[in-house]
Amino acid sequence: MTKLRMGVIGAGLWGTNHAHTFNVLPETELVAVCDIDEGRAQKMKESSGAAFALTDYEALVSRDDIDAVSVATPDFTHTPIILAALKANKHVLSEKPLATTVREAEKIVEAAAASRGKLMIDFHNRVNPILAQVRTMVQSGEIGVPRHGMARLSNTTFVPFEMLSWAAKSSALWFLGSHLVDVLRFILNDEVVRVYAVTRDGVLKAGGVDTRDFHLCILEFAGGAVVTMENSWILSPDNPSLVDFKLELVGDKGQIQADPTHNGGLRRMVEGGLRYSDYIGMTPTGETRIGGFVLESIGRFVDAVVRDAPLLADAMDGLANTKVLAAIEASAASGKAVDIA
Amino acid sequence: MTKLRMGVIGAGLWGTNHAHTFNVLPETELVAVCDIDEGRAQKMKESSGAAFALTDYEALVSRDDIDAVSVATPDFTHTPIILAALKANKHVLSEKPLATTVREAEKIVEAAAASRGKLMIDFHNRVNPILAQVRTMVQSGEIGVPRHGMARLSNTTFVPFEMLSWAAKSSALWFLGSHLVDVLRFILNDEVVRVYAVTRDGVLKAGGVDTRDFHLCILEFAGGAVVTMENSWILSPDNPSLVDFKLELVGDKGQIQADPTHNGGLRRMVEGGLRYSDYIGMTPTGETRIGGFVLESIGRFVDAVVRDAPLLADAMDGLANTKVLAAIEASAASGKAVDIA
Amino acid sequence: MTKLRMGVIGAGLWGTNHAHTFNVLPETELVAVCDIDEGRAQKMKESSGAAFALTDYEALVSRDDIDAVSVATPDFTHTPIILAALKANKHVLSEKPLATTVREAEKIVEAAAASRGKLMIDFHNRVNPILAQVRTMVQSGEIGVPRHGMARLSNTTFVPFEMLSWAAKSSALWFLGSHLVDVLRFILNDEVVRVYAVTRDGVLKAGGVDTRDFHLCILEFAGGAVVTMENSWILSPDNPSLVDFKLELVGDKGQIQADPTHNGGLRRMVEGGLRYSDYIGMTPTGETRIGGFVLESIGRFVDAVVRDAPLLADAMDGLANTKVLAAIEASAASGKAVDIA
Amino acid sequence: MTKLRMGVIGAGLWGTNHAHTFNVLPETELVAVCDIDEGRAQKMKESSGAAFALTDYEALVSRDDIDAVSVATPDFTHTPIILAALKANKHVLSEKPLATTVREAEKIVEAAAASRGKLMIDFHNRVNPILAQVRTMVQSGEIGVPRHGMARLSNTTFVPFEMLSWAAKSSALWFLGSHLVDVLRFILNDEVVRVYAVTRDGVLKAGGVDTRDFHLCILEFAGGAVVTMENSWILSPDNPSLVDFKLELVGDKGQIQADPTHNGGLRRMVEGGLRYSDYIGMTPTGETRIGGFVLESIGRFVDAVVRDAPLLADAMDGLANTKVLAAIEASAASGKAVDIA
Repeated sequence: MTKLRMGVIGAGLWGTNHAHTFNVLPETELVAVCDIDEGRAQKMKESSGAAFALTDYEALVSRDDIDAVSVATPDFTHTPIILAALKANKHVLSEKPLATTVREAEKIVEAAAASRGKLMIDFHNRVNPILAQVRTMVQSGEIGVPRHGMARLSNTTFVPFEMLSWAAKSSALWFLGSHLVDVLRFILNDEVVRVYAVTRDGVLKAGGVDTRDFHLCILEFAGGAVVTMENSWILSPDNPSLVDFKLELVGDKGQIQADPTHNGGLRRMVEGGLRYSDYIGMTPTGETRIGGFVLESIGRFVDAVVRDAPLLADAMDGLANTKVLAAIEASAASGKAVDIA
Repeated sequence: MTKLRMGVIGAGLWGTNHAHTFNVLPETELVAVCDIDEGRAQKMKESSGAAFALTDYEALVSRDDIDAVSVATPDFTHTPIILAALKANKHVLSEKPLATTVREAEKIVEAAAASRGKLMIDFHNRVNPILAQVRTMVQSGEIGVPRHGMARLSNTTFVPFEMLSWAAKSSALWFLGSHLVDVLRFILNDEVVRVYAVTRDGVLKAGGVDTRDFHLCILEFAGGAVVTMENSWILSPDNPSLVDFKLELVGDKGQIQADPTHNGGLRRMVEGGLRYSDYIGMTPTGETRIGGFVLESIGRFVDAVVRDAPLLADAMDGLANTKVLAAIEASAASGKAVDIA
Repeated sequence: MTKLRMGVIGAGLWGTNHAHTFNVLPETELVAVCDIDEGRAQKMKESSGAAFALTDYEALVSRDDIDAVSVATPDFTHTPIILAALKANKHVLSEKPLATTVREAEKIVEAAAASRGKLMIDFHNRVNPILAQVRTMVQSGEIGVPRHGMARLSNTTFVPFEMLSWAAKSSALWFLGSHLVDVLRFILNDEVVRVYAVTRDGVLKAGGVDTRDFHLCILEFAGGAVVTMENSWILSPDNPSLVDFKLELVGDKGQIQADPTHNGGLRRMVEGGLRYSDYIGMTPTGETRIGGFVLESIGRFVDAVVRDAPLLADAMDGLANTKVLAAIEASAASGKAVDIA
Repeated sequence: MTKLRMGVIGAGLWGTNHAHTFNVLPETELVAVCDIDEGRAQKMKESSGAAFALTDYEALVSRDDIDAVSVATPDFTHTPIILAALKANKHVLSEKPLATTVREAEKIVEAAAASRGKLMIDFHNRVNPILAQVRTMVQSGEIGVPRHGMARLSNTTFVPFEMLSWAAKSSALWFLGSHLVDVLRFILNDEVVRVYAVTRDGVLKAGGVDTRDFHLCILEFAGGAVVTMENSWILSPDNPSLVDFKLELVGDKGQIQADPTHNGGLRRMVEGGLRYSDYIGMTPTGETRIGGFVLESIGRFVDAVVRDAPLLADAMDGLANTKVLAAIEASAASGKAVDIA
């Protein structure tokens, strides 16, 4: 079997997950890593065993010994990289969100249609085992017609203040809401047609991170379902987990509650209080397999390229997602509900 | 000590709680009960040991041997009874909501100001031990400035379909939202200034109860806090409790989560699945004391009349409450956010 | 009504609860307080408004203006005080455990039989609203015949290391196991006939408190039920509550789980991590009523004396309790199961 | 790469998991299936695509085109099959428990030592992502020295009454306790040296399944830790999951609580009450990968054979496990604690 030759762009936390996965999967070979910071690129080359380290993504996507690239750079930098890679007819796995403006996302959709490369967005919650089951239940009619719901995907202040260097260039809406809007579209198999949102700032700005504290909104879907959504970056650092992810749907025949992060399946009480550990995102496996939905999602991209399996999320999903997030921002700015064409 | 002579109007579930309380408290004496259905009135007279049973509230409030009355009739019938009682200078303990239109609530505010009787609204969640603590925490600054929150007070379909005979004349918004809006005003010690709401119908109508299935809304408070609120009557009957009450507030110094009904403090697994039993609403006591916050609230009315203690919730609270609920209905009807003067 | 004239012996945390209750209940009058530490006695006299402060319990129980006394001193000091009070024909409300040896408990049983005073043990969990419901469910046959169960009543190290000055003279078994054994006897309405126990020490001793870390045991009841019981004083201080109380019973028709302390009905995330607040032990009331099961239990003693209501727990309950705890210690020492006559 | 040629013995629920895994893993090829019931064997051959279906395990293990076998037959039938396979120098993956008597387990240990085949016991909870983390935490010293704990692995009556055809030939102790004892040995990296147990029967016998209802026991480990353990088959069928798995360890520096099955990460409320769905045992993956710890464990056997990775659990683990279970039965029969050599 000829292996898929991979390049990973972005040598941060997530790029490392991509590199690890391409090293483990039997169908792929990690060839090159790329980061604008040469030191980071070099360091990742060494830790991952990639053959090359580059600082210029253009140089990477033009190489003949690369079949496909992962884009794991900050949200707002995705577009030119993806466009360049698609133009070079490389397959692309992009971290979420696809892009941070509708215009950019539309360009990418066009470029994807014109390219011989496939484009997948790494909406890994589509293979989160809890949420994948919720989708199956909903799509099989187990809860009947979904009528209303509530969804939270929020972080403690640790994320904007300590984890993300580029928090001020993003927000809980783009960083977390992009996941949550996709999860809702995926589970309901439906599109958002109208949003109303309220936002506030102050806490993060006071802490030196110039972005919104949170967005609260109400999403109306074409099929009639109505869902409240919270994306906040100011949850207390005393939360038992740095992410609180909850989703609940009420249908006319039943109800489902998903709590991937605060369920207490694993509770740790050591110096520093009660903490809930993650046990589904990344899980231990033998050295020739990947474990956990975060890596499984990357594996699905390989399936799509190598075996022509369906893309987990394609460019149109990325565009629809961006449209909803942009509409939420527009609603929060205007104080009026916004319809999505 | 001369005992406060009480009349209870409305011989349903809640009127029975009032009657029991007035029988137990040392400061009160249950004199009369009243219901438009003579059979029910008579039956309650017998079970409660009241001296009289009447079918006409006008007759009750005009009696000289009555000092105070409880109004425990359906929501939409409160206004004329309260007005009559206040006009007769009786003290009045009214079940919530005070009234179902702003105009009615305003009339009651005027009548209360003109009467020698005191008027209290039985917003018993103000003495719910969980929520009372939340208020204390918030008002003491423990979580800093409240920034955002989420609140749910919803019922399974059991309530509109089987428990309430007059569900079609009310809705989850009026029946449950009245509690929740009051709890939020009480805890935040703040007023709602703007609301946006979405409502849907279909499930209850299909089941023969002609009212709304739910209201989802976003409440903005004068002090800046923003809260999503759900009031639904279509939760699955398979829920472990027929009521799901949750409240969470995120401040700039901390966070509080209250879950008075679904916390699993008492889980019962017998024929029919897993159920969570209530243990704070009504609790066992010796025969000369009342137990649980539902009865404590009634006791607070007696304190206010007998010892001039502060009213737990007064006519202005009832008016503010009604204004918010009416604004939610207006927003849901118009599709636009509504400001509250 | 002539008021019951009360003396409270022991001016610690719990004595304060007794004093407060006797000040609030309409049937009682707090006359005197007593503590071997004169400063504490005097301070409590001032805060409680009692007429007298004494340092000698003999002097207290011989006064003619005292009808009844509360014994709220450390566990191991109860016996002589109770005996003196009963000999003086005073009514006695004793904190738990009644006594710390079977011989002492037997003497008290004899003295109670010979006295004109009534003796109640303050096993307040009998009126814990969660556990009271569990008893009702079990005794009504709701779970059928109880077959097996598990019970935990344990504390974090905060209690032996920081809260209790006399921890070295007690243990989790006597301090907490006394409650739990009583709760099990009460709920099952049955007697323990055989115990096996294992104990260890080391953590508390290393921290300067010379007592056992925990006892784990298996209790067999006359009616056939078998229950594992844990009483530990070395839970992590990072627990969300300083007490972890859980009780579960499996019957042949159903199952009940009670979680009075770790249920998360009220979760507080402020400086210092996630904490679960108590909301059923003591709850807010108007100033003329008591609230919460901790005070209700004291009220039941007054009911028993003033209205001849049944004692919540009598001397025989105290004796049976002490027998079980002593047998657990004997089993842990011998490594063999111990039968209780 | 030459593929490992597999035979699966036992065409029940678990054998199907083995067959599926060997079909998916790139290193293995499912060659034959075997069941004493010819119809079942034939059916599994068809569904799995195996080349052969046999009814005689001796015939299977003597084939030259088979490198390794899975033993997924009922507990009490393992020994002769394993012995035959080892004698034929095949690699063996045995379902748990290894054997149901110490003597049998000892024979297997000898046979494994003499064979060129490797023997692994499928204690899949060693790769349960929650429990694997608990082991890592404990072995890294995160909770300090483990002092006491509690462990439950129990089923509702659904398992003995409806799921297992051979329940009367096993018990909750052998079926579930085998897992739990292994998990405790694995996490603590320590051996049980003394047990005391109580058992009862009645409920299952009344329902026509002639075995014990439950075993409750106290396990003492060589390193000093003491753990209560419950294995019951009579939990209420109204439980939200048919298995209740909980494990808690208290160390002198911290505490861990694991709740793999009742954590409510995914709650389903549809016809029939509230149910918690599994989301870690088996999880969705692309068609060339396995997902969930139940299958990962089978993958570890392949790793051990193909890459000489360490066995997840070997014959000595199986023997130690059987010794503890046998000692528990001996203690329950004698009423005395039993030391394990």
